[in-house]
Amino acid sequence: MTDVLPLGSTIGILGGGQLGRMLSVAASRLGFRTHVFEPGANPPAADVAHALTTASYEDTEALKAFAASVDVVTYEFENIPTSALDVIEALKPIRPNREVLRISQDRLTEKDFLTGLGLTTAPYADVPDLAALEQALADLGAPAILKTRRFGYDGKGQVRITDATQAAQAFAEMKGAPAILEGFVDFTMEISVIAARGLDGSVACFDPGRNVHREGILRETTVPAGIPARLRTDAIILAGRILNALDYVGVMGVELFVTPQGLLVNEVAPRVHNSGHWTQNGCATDQFEQHIRAVTGWPLGDGSRHSDVVMQNLIGDDMDEVPTLAARPGTALHLYGKAESRPGRKMGHANHVKPQQA
Amino acid sequence: MTDVLPLGSTIGILGGGQLGRMLSVAASRLGFRTHVFEPGANPPAADVAHALTTASYEDTEALKAFAASVDVVTYEFENIPTSALDVIEALKPIRPNREVLRISQDRLTEKDFLTGLGLTTAPYADVPDLAALEQALADLGAPAILKTRRFGYDGKGQVRITDATQAAQAFAEMKGAPAILEGFVDFTMEISVIAARGLDGSVACFDPGRNVHREGILRETTVPAGIPARLRTDAIILAGRILNALDYVGVMGVELFVTPQGLLVNEVAPRVHNSGHWTQNGCATDQFEQHIRAVTGWPLGDGSRHSDVVMQNLIGDDMDEVPTLAARPGTALHLYGKAESRPGRKMGHANHVKPQQA
Repeated sequence: MTDVLPLGSTIGILGGGQLGRMLSVAASRLGFRTHVFEPGANPPAADVAHALTTASYEDTEALKAFAASVDVVTYEFENIPTSALDVIEALKPIRPNREVLRISQDRLTEKDFLTGLGLTTAPYADVPDLAALEQALADLGAPAILKTRRFGYDGKGQVRITDATQAAQAFAEMKGAPAILEGFVDFTMEISVIAARGLDGSVACFDPGRNVHREGILRETTVPAGIPARLRTDAIILAGRILNALDYVGVMGVELFVTPQGLLVNEVAPRVHNSGHWTQNGCATDQFEQHIRAVTGWPLGDGSRHSDVVMQNLIGDDMDEVPTLAARPGTALHLYGKAESRPGRKMGHANHVKPQQA
Repeated sequence: MTDVLPLGSTIGILGGGQLGRMLSVAASRLGFRTHVFEPGANPPAADVAHALTTASYEDTEALKAFAASVDVVTYEFENIPTSALDVIEALKPIRPNREVLRISQDRLTEKDFLTGLGLTTAPYADVPDLAALEQALADLGAPAILKTRRFGYDGKGQVRITDATQAAQAFAEMKGAPAILEGFVDFTMEISVIAARGLDGSVACFDPGRNVHREGILRETTVPAGIPARLRTDAIILAGRILNALDYVGVMGVELFVTPQGLLVNEVAPRVHNSGHWTQNGCATDQFEQHIRAVTGWPLGDGSRHSDVVMQNLIGDDMDEVPTLAARPGTALHLYGKAESRPGRKMGHANHVKPQQA
């Protein structure tokens, strides 16, 4: 194993949310320390990190000190300012790499990349101005969704257009942010593949899960997804193509629509992914450890599924269910330690593990 | 759920070794923070704890500040000075309770307690002086083991006596420490039960594991243990009796010898136990989370076993095996982040999970 980080090395994590928290726990299992960089106060990841830097992504000195104190840098979200990455990259390797972030930070660039690989996405069009939006609506038809090119997640920065007459108002809601229009897709279900690629180029995918969203937020992931074996194989091969094309190192979440015409790529997330949380109770190596293994140069672990799992997100008031879930056989709780519950805020998740046949 | 610690509460952990480390990780899953109290530098638990106090157990002010900052106190080892417990108990609940520590800190008291419950232990005798040792050797026969009553672990503070003529020398090796003599037991295997009792008095036991020791240190635990169903039931009932008699709250490790005459209690540990590490990859709720659930007043979790596991301790130079183990299918590594490897030092463990039948 060349380029393997020695035991006791420190992994820098940009972002201190629940993904950083669970990455930090996984790092500890492999004997690594973590240092979390997060602008916000009381980040969930700090409870289980060796060190925390509270500073803005514009604070060059803080970024430099952070980079100097760690051996490799990874991230739990993709919308990190480019300027911050420039500062860090001059000092330490960033995994997954910069090119991956450049692509995934922009919906248009991402879709161009995916279609350039010969993969299918929802029909889309760049809409730099209202005239372009009107043309795109004529081409793609309504309903369609207008989305900001950058900084969108969990349904934010999106406007649904059901009729061409709504074009002007929808465009105004983008407040000048560059946007793309996406045509509607007639899909039977959404699945996702959590895929990993090691520093040595080896690829391993977790079993695809079936996702249910409400109000743009993931609510439930079920494994196995209940799809034909052929689709399962297609999904895994497709994810592998994306990883290889990007010379990717780490875990990626690939959201796919299952349509009568086959699989269609919804979006990719260059990080551990909510729809992969089931792996914590379904596999010997979960997605968080797989990511840590990849970015530290370890061989990928065994992500084969030993149990059937339903992952249930706990969002806002769902936390009222915790006492019931805590007592439910086969249920493993994973709470994020967030002090304040708000509507739409991800507070934790529960993995419901199906008992094995004796 | 009365007496349930609210989410976001802080659990104080006395001792910052690998058990404290894994307890801290488990606490984070349930949304709790931890504060570790440890006299030594760079404790493994600090990498994943919210707060660390580095101070001696004689430092009353540090103990008071620690107790003031937490909501409940637990511990990862049983040999905590009584004076420190006095300071803490005046401020915050200690779970498991003081009586448990009083009993388990002294091999003689522990054996008297166990036999008082009607359980069988190895034959033993108090040996306050050489004459008592000679009498005990005459009664119990040789070979036998002379053990310090207090502060023994991993084979430390023990002298094997193979012949009565060695009595004086063995007694001298105790250096005046109070000791007991234990007769040899003809056992076919050692098993252990990791048992938990909640604040509400409910009891749950993990499946017994079969243990292999070398040089007084646990090397391997295998589940299932390969014992008849009747013995398995006996072991679990026996553990439950001990927990109930102590009004115990938390996880306890109960080491048992399997003999032709039935089960015999070797020793009990009032804490999470090395022989329970397999639960991390064999159950939805592992021993660490079970302990956190108990001491915070949560209901006990589902500790039923979903997989067959062999837990292998990584001791000293065993760490050379890490690159091989890291690449082995079905193997989950748990390293403790200790900077320095020494002979006999527990550096980590590997859980080898047997693939399920499809």
